[in-house]
Amino acid sequence: MSRTDSGLLAPTWSGTPVEATTCDEAWLRAMLEVEAALARSQAKLGLVPAAHAEVITKTAEAGGLDVVALARASRAAANPVVALVPAFTALVAAVDPEAAEHVHRGSTSQDVLDSAAMLIARRVLAQIDGDLSRVAAALATLAEEHRDTLVAGRTLAQHAVPTTFGLKVASWLQLVLDALARVRSVASAGLPASLGGAAGTLAAYGEFAELEGGLPLHGVELIAPFAEELGLAEPVLPWHTVRTPIADLGAVLSFVTGALGKFAVDVQTLSRTEIAEVAEPAAEGRGTSSAMPQKRNPVLATLIVSAARQVPALSLVLAQSMIAEDERPAGAWHAEWQALREALRLTGGATFTAAELAEGLEVDTDRMRANVDLTRGAIVAERLAVALTPVLGKAKAKSLLTSASTEASTTGTSLADVLRPLPDLAGVDLDDLLDPAHYTGAAAQLVDRVLLRYRNYTGS
Amino acid sequence: MSRTDSGLLAPTWSGTPVEATTCDEAWLRAMLEVEAALARSQAKLGLVPAAHAEVITKTAEAGGLDVVALARASRAAANPVVALVPAFTALVAAVDPEAAEHVHRGSTSQDVLDSAAMLIARRVLAQIDGDLSRVAAALATLAEEHRDTLVAGRTLAQHAVPTTFGLKVASWLQLVLDALARVRSVASAGLPASLGGAAGTLAAYGEFAELEGGLPLHGVELIAPFAEELGLAEPVLPWHTVRTPIADLGAVLSFVTGALGKFAVDVQTLSRTEIAEVAEPAAEGRGTSSAMPQKRNPVLATLIVSAARQVPALSLVLAQSMIAEDERPAGAWHAEWQALREALRLTGGATFTAAELAEGLEVDTDRMRANVDLTRGAIVAERLAVALTPVLGKAKAKSLLTSASTEASTTGTSLADVLRPLPDLAGVDLDDLLDPAHYTGAAAQLVDRVLLRYRNYTGS
Amino acid sequence: MSRTDSGLLAPTWSGTPVEATTCDEAWLRAMLEVEAALARSQAKLGLVPAAHAEVITKTAEAGGLDVVALARASRAAANPVVALVPAFTALVAAVDPEAAEHVHRGSTSQDVLDSAAMLIARRVLAQIDGDLSRVAAALATLAEEHRDTLVAGRTLAQHAVPTTFGLKVASWLQLVLDALARVRSVASAGLPASLGGAAGTLAAYGEFAELEGGLPLHGVELIAPFAEELGLAEPVLPWHTVRTPIADLGAVLSFVTGALGKFAVDVQTLSRTEIAEVAEPAAEGRGTSSAMPQKRNPVLATLIVSAARQVPALSLVLAQSMIAEDERPAGAWHAEWQALREALRLTGGATFTAAELAEGLEVDTDRMRANVDLTRGAIVAERLAVALTPVLGKAKAKSLLTSASTEASTTGTSLADVLRPLPDLAGVDLDDLLDPAHYTGAAAQLVDRVLLRYRNYTGS
Amino acid sequence: MSRTDSGLLAPTWSGTPVEATTCDEAWLRAMLEVEAALARSQAKLGLVPAAHAEVITKTAEAGGLDVVALARASRAAANPVVALVPAFTALVAAVDPEAAEHVHRGSTSQDVLDSAAMLIARRVLAQIDGDLSRVAAALATLAEEHRDTLVAGRTLAQHAVPTTFGLKVASWLQLVLDALARVRSVASAGLPASLGGAAGTLAAYGEFAELEGGLPLHGVELIAPFAEELGLAEPVLPWHTVRTPIADLGAVLSFVTGALGKFAVDVQTLSRTEIAEVAEPAAEGRGTSSAMPQKRNPVLATLIVSAARQVPALSLVLAQSMIAEDERPAGAWHAEWQALREALRLTGGATFTAAELAEGLEVDTDRMRANVDLTRGAIVAERLAVALTPVLGKAKAKSLLTSASTEASTTGTSLADVLRPLPDLAGVDLDDLLDPAHYTGAAAQLVDRVLLRYRNYTGS
Repeated sequence: MSRTDSGLLAPTWSGTPVEATTCDEAWLRAMLEVEAALARSQAKLGLVPAAHAEVITKTAEAGGLDVVALARASRAAANPVVALVPAFTALVAAVDPEAAEHVHRGSTSQDVLDSAAMLIARRVLAQIDGDLSRVAAALATLAEEHRDTLVAGRTLAQHAVPTTFGLKVASWLQLVLDALARVRSVASAGLPASLGGAAGTLAAYGEFAELEGGLPLHGVELIAPFAEELGLAEPVLPWHTVRTPIADLGAVLSFVTGALGKFAVDVQTLSRTEIAEVAEPAAEGRGTSSAMPQKRNPVLATLIVSAARQVPALSLVLAQSMIAEDERPAGAWHAEWQALREALRLTGGATFTAAELAEGLEVDTDRMRANVDLTRGAIVAERLAVALTPVLGKAKAKSLLTSASTEASTTGTSLADVLRPLPDLAGVDLDDLLDPAHYTGAAAQLVDRVLLRYRNYTGS
Repeated sequence: MSRTDSGLLAPTWSGTPVEATTCDEAWLRAMLEVEAALARSQAKLGLVPAAHAEVITKTAEAGGLDVVALARASRAAANPVVALVPAFTALVAAVDPEAAEHVHRGSTSQDVLDSAAMLIARRVLAQIDGDLSRVAAALATLAEEHRDTLVAGRTLAQHAVPTTFGLKVASWLQLVLDALARVRSVASAGLPASLGGAAGTLAAYGEFAELEGGLPLHGVELIAPFAEELGLAEPVLPWHTVRTPIADLGAVLSFVTGALGKFAVDVQTLSRTEIAEVAEPAAEGRGTSSAMPQKRNPVLATLIVSAARQVPALSLVLAQSMIAEDERPAGAWHAEWQALREALRLTGGATFTAAELAEGLEVDTDRMRANVDLTRGAIVAERLAVALTPVLGKAKAKSLLTSASTEASTTGTSLADVLRPLPDLAGVDLDDLLDPAHYTGAAAQLVDRVLLRYRNYTGS
Repeated sequence: MSRTDSGLLAPTWSGTPVEATTCDEAWLRAMLEVEAALARSQAKLGLVPAAHAEVITKTAEAGGLDVVALARASRAAANPVVALVPAFTALVAAVDPEAAEHVHRGSTSQDVLDSAAMLIARRVLAQIDGDLSRVAAALATLAEEHRDTLVAGRTLAQHAVPTTFGLKVASWLQLVLDALARVRSVASAGLPASLGGAAGTLAAYGEFAELEGGLPLHGVELIAPFAEELGLAEPVLPWHTVRTPIADLGAVLSFVTGALGKFAVDVQTLSRTEIAEVAEPAAEGRGTSSAMPQKRNPVLATLIVSAARQVPALSLVLAQSMIAEDERPAGAWHAEWQALREALRLTGGATFTAAELAEGLEVDTDRMRANVDLTRGAIVAERLAVALTPVLGKAKAKSLLTSASTEASTTGTSLADVLRPLPDLAGVDLDDLLDPAHYTGAAAQLVDRVLLRYRNYTGS
Repeated sequence: MSRTDSGLLAPTWSGTPVEATTCDEAWLRAMLEVEAALARSQAKLGLVPAAHAEVITKTAEAGGLDVVALARASRAAANPVVALVPAFTALVAAVDPEAAEHVHRGSTSQDVLDSAAMLIARRVLAQIDGDLSRVAAALATLAEEHRDTLVAGRTLAQHAVPTTFGLKVASWLQLVLDALARVRSVASAGLPASLGGAAGTLAAYGEFAELEGGLPLHGVELIAPFAEELGLAEPVLPWHTVRTPIADLGAVLSFVTGALGKFAVDVQTLSRTEIAEVAEPAAEGRGTSSAMPQKRNPVLATLIVSAARQVPALSLVLAQSMIAEDERPAGAWHAEWQALREALRLTGGATFTAAELAEGLEVDTDRMRANVDLTRGAIVAERLAVALTPVLGKAKAKSLLTSASTEASTTGTSLADVLRPLPDLAGVDLDDLLDPAHYTGAAAQLVDRVLLRYRNYTGS
């Protein structure tokens, strides 16, 4: 039988922890956890005999359903739950036929699948949180270490003014902290359990309650214990067509990969052969080419960038699913599943990869310094423009420096050598003005600001 | 001279308040506000004579620049600020040549444009907040009024089980409250001023400070007073390539239109000729057709849906701009401007429109009831399945009802008439079981939960 | 070991033919086909002994590689080929160590993976072609049969003027023919083999040629025989960063699902409980609910719509991969694989599903007619406006009919009864004017135009 | 009154020819052209007096409508045509009240707006065709000139093997030719006129015909003369919900910006300070910074990239509009207008910009050669691996070269110096093997293939 997808085309997450958390069997297990939690929460309210809930729970834990068969069967009802229910009921019936009568009582496919999705998402967010924390810690160390390491500031692909590598790293760290804050915000607001019944009124849950001759229930009483059993948040309302949790997940996953994407694209740029200021951590076989023996490709950054190019599009699918007509939409809901799962595992894989990258990044400070000097002074032309303003006026200072920079660049001489003979600049201390190390502005202070935020955040 | 865009193709926002808030002249004014705030904050630190800052501020307020000429000139530097600076400097110089020397001191295009974008965004978010609050208030009233109004619950385009119109409205309200919470979260976290100088080190700001013979500054000292002058938040770090504020705006705007899109698509569905349960508020000329005299189109909902179909795509552009290489990217930043502006005004227009729709929605409760009865009982088949489970067992109960529903539907008789003769159902009170009004589950309680949230939220 | 993805969350394609065509093992086989074709084409030029090429081919056909292990190993080089080459070489070496020296000679990962992708795509396009042809045939029959079946034309969710169901179906057919034309255009232009070597110069292919002491080759001579072995088109140029084939595939897949999405969304609308003009083909277990026995959900249409909501986003990822820097990009290429595969299988699954839907669609012409009469004449108000124009003038005719329609609608009387007493309309034949069957315009002729196109297309 | 949008935030198209072609007034004019063409085509069939059609045409040409007022009025009906019709009718009535009765006869908003959109699109495609042709010509010249210019081939941001600058340019040319072919394919297949009447049956067109006592018409007879008057193609079917023309435009515009985006991103990379192999054409004020006098930013490439980052998202909105329910959708159609216009003008602006860039690109061949030598031989390590395979076997050759490359890189010696002492390589001609100019494979032949395609294409 064919292996539909084992990650062959997804090296960003293949074999990383998030693969196991999000695979089909994990979804199947999560759906069974939901069925079990439903029975237990109904038992808590006296609607299902405790012994039956226990049989259901044990059977759910034991598993044993054929995930491929269920996948095939999912076409008939356009979702996997309709086929899952009788298959699971049969497993329970094999243990205790009476318990089987209490499986999926009053429930609906969307309650099961949405709650399962939240279980999966919660686990993936926890993995992402852990890995983002590792990234943040590694970047904090790196920012501190290189707080004053001179590097060329580049804008629109050109050298601009000097900056420090520490400040560059601090920018990455700032984004990672922003990402971590958003991950935690979504996680702590609580991913909600889904419980609404056929059309969000919980009517069948209440109806079954009545059937048991118990208290007259509306069904709403079941939400809190059900959510508690799953360790999920209690929603105000069934959210079959109130897709806030899905949209929020899409937004946060897109943010995380965007944040890591900035880090990764900078690593790629800085590791270009001509720039060569950083290199990815070496590892046996990593970054090799099938043909070129000298190659050491920035593969970790590439894996991250490839995720960052996909997740916003998947997130868009999720955002658009908010426009969900009626009490359950005919397509918008169904379009969410693969998009959400792929966004979760791409983000999980990218974060895992980023931890490896941040913790092992190799930095070549000599090369950074050499690159700063590449333009023979032009990188501090802005400073000269400022300094010469009182002497020449703003406009004339700028135009003088434009032509001097061009001359220096064309002739291959230094800006200092071009400027020194000019009578206007007689009393000016060009050596000081042209020293890039004297023109990093607030870079160090800015690094400190981010490190302070980091420490406040981690409480360290 | 041609009118590039006056909203002819954008009825969602054309002529609504957000148009004026986001038009080119509003951006130009905002950029001048930023230049003025920069001078004043530098004056606060003693870096610019207060009188000069005042001249700069007054000139900025007076305006008088040619927005079309600036637009044309923006191609040379790929952004509008490089041409704005000399044009504005000339205006200032006409008043006071010395003050002109202090225009845009130490600054860079991105500081001006990003800060201006945040000013615009703050104003739009305030408009959205106001209109969303109106939507919420109108929906809360409607939900309360129709807490117990019976309506058909529909899933996958088919009648499912009964629900109440109040619960449907409560779902819209829940989404609007979620949207409002996200708008306020972004607004209260604070849209940040942008101040970084050429490559985010603030070096030229510090250099000019030194030039004035004042205190030796790194430049970082300027961030807080600058932000304060603009009424924007103080960022931890210059965010030229830390695009959190942009990504957050994209996500929240996408969420708002998604939330309103759910409301609008339901209004469209319920106002279908065959359903006719709601109608848009009547107004002179509204919803008319150029050809069909009988037409009353759901145009407000259509304007909202058209926005909800565009904003996620614009938000995707913004999300992808997070992957911004170096200290200023060559394209990612530039791709943000139109996408952000269009997302802001589509969302602003959609929210304005939604307030009109929510406040004037016409509800036909008789038609709702008639539609509930359309399937002659099948809408409560789920309830019967539950009730008959003890009598027949779960599986047999369901299969009996499937065939009975089919028979009722095919023959045009009621489900009651099909079921009544069956010996198995001898003692069952079918009249009660088949009354849709007795099968709305927790609908009323769920409405109350959302209304409670609403009241807590507004403090009312 | 976990089943990463067996289609549990993708009922659109799970178990349909496209699943097998696009699964990981299919990709692995396709990559081995490419390695074999490379050896054979090199043998044709005398660069590899024919016997070795045969061993390589036989070994490739035998398979036996561990797809999961290869997936895991793909992270080291950020693509699955680097690990595949030694694993496959080892298999060949076990048969003939000298043949093993000729595996992957001069090649590069991208040649293998891109060529394999084209093999897969070609097969999927063929499946799509076949299923689209079935859809077209079924719709052509349906359009012909219902050429004159009266149905309400609906615009902006409201009854507009009468049309025919045949014309509605002809619109679907027109889109399907457009889709088919685009699929065939891409397929017949030819999906190209990829052969460029390390950086698109084919240098190593030439170098190995020289090594064999054969003719001095530049490498370019290998393209045609290689493409021929694979049955793929010969590209003008290696397309490692000329991503036309990928962008074209994305565009055509998005078009196909969009075309089918129009069909599906109309089926959903028309099968709404209140409209009930069409129903999906019945099948054991199809469209059932886990809770509601009466339900017959439009699940086929839902599967199609869910695909149509995802594929444009995946296509966007592919479109953006055109911006591929250098001779091989660091991320843009890698982002294509899953997006392309998912777009292929969603489209394949949706097309397969659409064939089932089109071939079995149930049509209720009585209900169509009843719905036309629902507004008691207002559906032909446009016609009356035209007819009364000579009597009353254009403006007065329209305003009279607007108020008459409103009165009819409010009072529940027919438009005829409202209009008949009006003195202005004394001599007008209202019975004829108000007959919807007399106001279908060119519907029948338009159906014929599309059927003619269909017949020309199929040569039938 | 505020200037909603004059291009201040869109330097890619601001002030370029496409701005005038797509501005609101251009759309208004196009809509009036459609009204005039409708009257003239009806006159051709004897349905409207020729004199009236002439008055209508003259009035349409004279213009004089207030575009801002129309934009404001568009909200009432959710499209600009409903308000346009009475405003234009009044203008005609001022000339000839009887002619006014024949304005917009039998028509519907969508016929007018969709036909106008096609007029605009046809003009923009012609502009794009012209500018793409200029790009192609410039690149063909450049490719020929640099057919043998050595440059480093780069993959995953690392030097890979040598290639030629000519081949790089040929890749750009290949994409531009692909783009041109797709533009011409859409243009020559013909953008269709839109004519369907209220719900696509053309009924009112026929009804008015009957009114005139002329031939009994179905309305379909009007399509061909109407299309002819507009110079647009005749559609098989009214395409109110058959959105092929819109989807095709979206796909082709996305392709064009993607093709140019590849060119632009390479220019940005190659113009990086550390690489400096190309520079944008110099022009007064171009590429300057507001602060840094030495800066010469790749602004043309940046304008192009910023478009290429937006158009795929706009194209996605258009692709999704294919899912258009009923005979006119409530939102999908309305979402197209701004997205289509912005995609047209971004693409038009990007193409205009690309012509300027291609025609003036400055190339530094010395720097290219210097960069090739940067790794002191490692750039031909692949060739050595091939050459040493007979000596050492494939695996050993590769591992030897991996360690030799590492040693060379670490110690700063050349690969030649590391290899020369090795006894295994005694008889090997390292000087020849290590000459990058001897390892460009088929680069020259591939350039010739693309140039041949170019010449065939242009017939030159």
